[in-house]
Amino acid sequence: MTPPTITSFADLGRAVAALPGPDEVAGEAAAKREPQLTKPAGALGRLEELAAWLARWQGRHPPAVGVLKAHVFAANHGVAARGVSAYPASVTAEMVRNFEAGGAAINQLCRAFGVAFAADALKLDRPTQDFTKAPAMSEVECVDAIVFGMGVVTDGTDALALGEMGIGNTTAAAALAMGLYGGAAADWTGAGTGVVGERLKQKTAVVAEAVALHRTEIASPFEALRRLGGRELAAIAGAVLAARFRRVPVVLDGYAATAAAAVLEAAQPGALDHCQVGHLSAEPGHRRLLEHLGKTPLLDLGMRLGEATGAVLALQVLKGAAACHAGMATFQSAGVSGKDS
Amino acid sequence: MTPPTITSFADLGRAVAALPGPDEVAGEAAAKREPQLTKPAGALGRLEELAAWLARWQGRHPPAVGVLKAHVFAANHGVAARGVSAYPASVTAEMVRNFEAGGAAINQLCRAFGVAFAADALKLDRPTQDFTKAPAMSEVECVDAIVFGMGVVTDGTDALALGEMGIGNTTAAAALAMGLYGGAAADWTGAGTGVVGERLKQKTAVVAEAVALHRTEIASPFEALRRLGGRELAAIAGAVLAARFRRVPVVLDGYAATAAAAVLEAAQPGALDHCQVGHLSAEPGHRRLLEHLGKTPLLDLGMRLGEATGAVLALQVLKGAAACHAGMATFQSAGVSGKDS
Repeated sequence: MTPPTITSFADLGRAVAALPGPDEVAGEAAAKREPQLTKPAGALGRLEELAAWLARWQGRHPPAVGVLKAHVFAANHGVAARGVSAYPASVTAEMVRNFEAGGAAINQLCRAFGVAFAADALKLDRPTQDFTKAPAMSEVECVDAIVFGMGVVTDGTDALALGEMGIGNTTAAAALAMGLYGGAAADWTGAGTGVVGERLKQKTAVVAEAVALHRTEIASPFEALRRLGGRELAAIAGAVLAARFRRVPVVLDGYAATAAAAVLEAAQPGALDHCQVGHLSAEPGHRRLLEHLGKTPLLDLGMRLGEATGAVLALQVLKGAAACHAGMATFQSAGVSGKDS
Repeated sequence: MTPPTITSFADLGRAVAALPGPDEVAGEAAAKREPQLTKPAGALGRLEELAAWLARWQGRHPPAVGVLKAHVFAANHGVAARGVSAYPASVTAEMVRNFEAGGAAINQLCRAFGVAFAADALKLDRPTQDFTKAPAMSEVECVDAIVFGMGVVTDGTDALALGEMGIGNTTAAAALAMGLYGGAAADWTGAGTGVVGERLKQKTAVVAEAVALHRTEIASPFEALRRLGGRELAAIAGAVLAARFRRVPVVLDGYAATAAAAVLEAAQPGALDHCQVGHLSAEPGHRRLLEHLGKTPLLDLGMRLGEATGAVLALQVLKGAAACHAGMATFQSAGVSGKDS
């Protein structure tokens, strides 16, 4: 289904209120096939749930995992000027060139696993405003970034890994998460690229300062995104939204990607039912965020790089789940005796 | 290095006392390259450790993951006659035929991920003795199975996933683990293929009975394997041993495979340093076993099928780790600014 046209937050509110649900016919077909496969019931654990989830959200049975994509959005943040990252803001553009040249971690993973990769930089020469002083974006800027993200999702993608790159964006993720769910800045703020000691205290203070400035003005989750987020986070939210309409199951990467997607869930509970969280980030706020979302990550490997790296690894779990569900023999076809026979 | 010839438990004792160590030159090369790669230090988490581990145990830098193999050993257990499984013992042979026909879960995973697959049945028509009445195997039988397992490991394998199939073998794994580490039978006994309620109590009693019969006779870990194990478990121990000599890093599957390998670690601490545990089995004794071994599994997906399924999924994590380590650009080559620059 083509996603609706979005030109304002009001349009977004209408879009999330009209999200398509799962395909229960495909889900029932998966539920019917699963117990016939040559293994004890439940023995593939989460892989069994994932196969059914893929069927429901792709809207077909058996689910396919032939066309896997990863999309990374990059942007710059005004708040980077506050010294919240261990790296200079120029690294965002340098890493985008590294993505294009095939030298980043995500390039290696996509190549190793046959996942199509694309990266888009969103106005790197125009960072968002420093959100300790003003809203990061105007509504128009935020909607533009959301619409850009919506535009990258194409029909026929079997699963989509979403990630980000942006110096300063774990600060934005922390502020956004705190803006959505409350709590203390220290609950949501972590080392990011490697900020520790006094600098981590300063980063935490920046998050607290930002949320204090905007708190009374956050009338909706989209308003939180505009004030405390960033362009790459808005683009991720847009891609997640469009994927729902286009029946593309999504795997979210780490803390920043999950915080971006959380905007949709805060606006409309269930809006992330077509999403898995690829891995548990080493960034400590991620666990708290996942508790709010009720999501269990697929992997826990101590990663905190972003770039969709954890999500692309997690795509392999989906691939395995779908391969088992679609390809396994049944007890009847293989002549294997059933339970207690 | 060709593994030593084994004709007795005494030979095995000498072999585990003479295990080759890691290649520290390769390990140092990995440690030197890692901080140059275009990501914050530590941001790939466990993948960074895995790349260095692969280098050390393959004995080369960069490590390769082009040749991945999975090997499953199948055997029958006399104790199956005690009703410890939800399935009849005939399922072992039926599943071996399913492996050969390509219909099992492990076949789908190996096909999806380009992992070479082989399964070997060990004298299915001659189950081990019911170990609640007698030792499961004679020393000759146990050594034969170990030597068989040793024989399947070939030079040039970049990583080897090891798994098993055998109706009754979670009972053997529980008895073996209890024989090695003590504790109560209930600590080690789980649902296996799906045994619950009264039947799980009976299975637990069978494990307790077996260990009580043999406990005073268990003079060595190999003696525990012979008395309480099974042919497929002995073969796994043999394959793990041979892999160490041939510089083949190993990924162990779930509870039964880990219990088999634990025999070597109990005989010689460090004997499993070239092994990762692929996943945390839903079988509750696995977590306890891993605590004894000091191993953290790579995945936790609620799986409990065996057949090397969890190990083959985990091979993809190794593949990703090696791909990032070998293929990523350096800060210098990509022109990316370093930390605090």
